[in-house]
Amino acid sequence: MKFNFFIIGLGQIGSSLAVAFKKSGVARKVFGNDICWKDYYKEIIDEYFDNKEEGVKKADIIILSTPPRKIIELINEIAPSLNPQKILMDTGSTKFKILEEMRKYPGKILIGGHPMAGSVKEGKNAINGDLFKGKPFFISFPNEKSRKGEKIVKEILERIGGIPVEVDGKTHDFYVSITSHFPYLLSLLLYSLFLEHSSKNKEIENFTSTGFLWTTRLCLTNPSVGEDIVLTNKENILNQIERTISILEKLKEGIVREEISDFIKEINNEIKKRRKFYENFLE
Amino acid sequence: MKFNFFIIGLGQIGSSLAVAFKKSGVARKVFGNDICWKDYYKEIIDEYFDNKEEGVKKADIIILSTPPRKIIELINEIAPSLNPQKILMDTGSTKFKILEEMRKYPGKILIGGHPMAGSVKEGKNAINGDLFKGKPFFISFPNEKSRKGEKIVKEILERIGGIPVEVDGKTHDFYVSITSHFPYLLSLLLYSLFLEHSSKNKEIENFTSTGFLWTTRLCLTNPSVGEDIVLTNKENILNQIERTISILEKLKEGIVREEISDFIKEINNEIKKRRKFYENFLE
Repeated sequence: MKFNFFIIGLGQIGSSLAVAFKKSGVARKVFGNDICWKDYYKEIIDEYFDNKEEGVKKADIIILSTPPRKIIELINEIAPSLNPQKILMDTGSTKFKILEEMRKYPGKILIGGHPMAGSVKEGKNAINGDLFKGKPFFISFPNEKSRKGEKIVKEILERIGGIPVEVDGKTHDFYVSITSHFPYLLSLLLYSLFLEHSSKNKEIENFTSTGFLWTTRLCLTNPSVGEDIVLTNKENILNQIERTISILEKLKEGIVREEISDFIKEINNEIKKRRKFYENFLE
Repeated sequence: MKFNFFIIGLGQIGSSLAVAFKKSGVARKVFGNDICWKDYYKEIIDEYFDNKEEGVKKADIIILSTPPRKIIELINEIAPSLNPQKILMDTGSTKFKILEEMRKYPGKILIGGHPMAGSVKEGKNAINGDLFKGKPFFISFPNEKSRKGEKIVKEILERIGGIPVEVDGKTHDFYVSITSHFPYLLSLLLYSLFLEHSSKNKEIENFTSTGFLWTTRLCLTNPSVGEDIVLTNKENILNQIERTISILEKLKEGIVREEISDFIKEINNEIKKRRKFYENFLE
């Protein structure tokens, strides 16, 4: 089976999906749209539509790969007049609020999606048709009608090498707040501590170890995506902030009393079980 | 010029120095000692001494590459009877307290050192004779007498590809607290948030993005080294904790009011200037 895709938002995920769809043979045609045309789009899609209606009309499957708050806008723009045979899926990093929006259209096939994939690169360099290989691709079905797209979407995700994992929006957003969204916020915080001093004294640049690079790497996230992620996963992130302040208060006492050995060893014992995992992904 | 080295502590730094000294031709012989013998030592050193006195006697230059609190112990064990022609240098990640200890021996050539280098690997796999290439190697001179070793030590560090950068202990420890030691603590904290849930529900494992791996990678630091680093750089780390709690309180308000755009954009603008740096080191 081959499909016509229309991808709105040609950032790293949207562009990489376009390449993966072509490469895997699952696409007949891939159409695209973004806030503005970039020259390299002609290498990855068959046709660019400034007019989104035209793209929706020509596609079997519409993919929304913009920042999450824009996805919410687009659902309300596209879903009302969407042909009930067509599938509309998003790839936003948060799911609960997006699924809530999708539930407003019980007669349409709307599916939530989120690939656990990404890299530090940007623009053309970030495009990678193998980006989804071996990675979980979360999918959520907001209502009964959306199940009609289940078989097709799972097949497509498998064809591009992803592992479809069904999850509900609440569970998804809670877990990613711990493994991705709050780490992003901490990485911004860490970089802000560095900036307080680097703006005054360049000497600190000598001290940016690889450890600093690893822990602050998420600051390179596209700022519009980052902002939308935090604001569409507010409650979970606020809870992680509270939890962190209380752990920091305890750590402070531990450091003053010189009793941090148990805390460090417990975590080190756990993470060591995953050492291979870290080595494979990171070096 | 060729020297005999005696390296106490054959972890990643000690072992990699041994290999680098041999490879660069700066070593006549490399002797070693650790808390226990490991079979692969015979591939990287010429002779292993259980008895540290013997190693000190046979070497021109003694290198202490143990965790920082053990370095302090070893300085007091070795320095009193050290031949005033010989050089003793350490490679600990904190400098202020170690230099304070070295100052007790004004008649000896004691030099503080800290290479900004390291990786996620451990044991034999972590050994890398090129580890220091192109990286700053901080050096500190606790007193007048220690300057007698300056020329030799700088030459050795350059021969193994490092960039000798002189710094005083207070400045060093303040900057590394921001770029390395506090990031280490935050990475432990992040992993502890994950463990709170992963112990109850394995499902969260699916959500460990590369972002999570990057930000928690420092948890793989040898726990004895990690503990010693935090406890020998206590004041700076406690200050960073205070600072972080106050930023988190402000971030909380910003998220509730949905006003985090400026914070994110400012940091993103700054880090983007260093994008190449990140890409070169991390991918």
